[in-house]
Amino acid sequence: MFTAHVRVTLRPSILDPQGKAVQHALHELGMGSVESVRTGTFVEVRVDEPTPEAAEAVVRQACDRLLANPVTEDYEILALVPAEETAA
Amino acid sequence: MFTAHVRVTLRPSILDPQGKAVQHALHELGMGSVESVRTGTFVEVRVDEPTPEAAEAVVRQACDRLLANPVTEDYEILALVPAEETAA
Repeated sequence: MFTAHVRVTLRPSILDPQGKAVQHALHELGMGSVESVRTGTFVEVRVDEPTPEAAEAVVRQACDRLLANPVTEDYEILALVPAEETAA
Repeated sequence: MFTAHVRVTLRPSILDPQGKAVQHALHELGMGSVESVRTGTFVEVRVDEPTPEAAEAVVRQACDRLLANPVTEDYEILALVPAEETAA
């Protein structure tokens, strides 16, 4: 059993209105040093596969087919660890 | 200038209906080895501060005051690096 942490974010070339809104709100709260904010999705996937390679293949397939929009988003597997080690 | 990557997720004790829906969809797509899915928010924050400590303080303040709901969510700073090094 493995746990993967995946980041799915808009391509840098694509405007992120939600990020702009968050940045504006942080400035309103006095955090003027915040230059930019970009938001996305964080996904934790637990996969019952025998090897890390097999687990990664399933996670990539999940991203390609469902989790990430291939036209507007990029994804990155931030971590892939044996399931027992994750606290999240 | 520093870039922080932040994960904001529901507390493990809290039901994640969105995660359940994603898991169900992945099973429908033939990825039966997916045991569980938990979703959250990924935030990239660029902060114009002179030191990593100052940048981290701003990011923690942003999480405490806006990005993470203190009642239902946990947050974690996954990375804090000089801004030039990030690709995202």
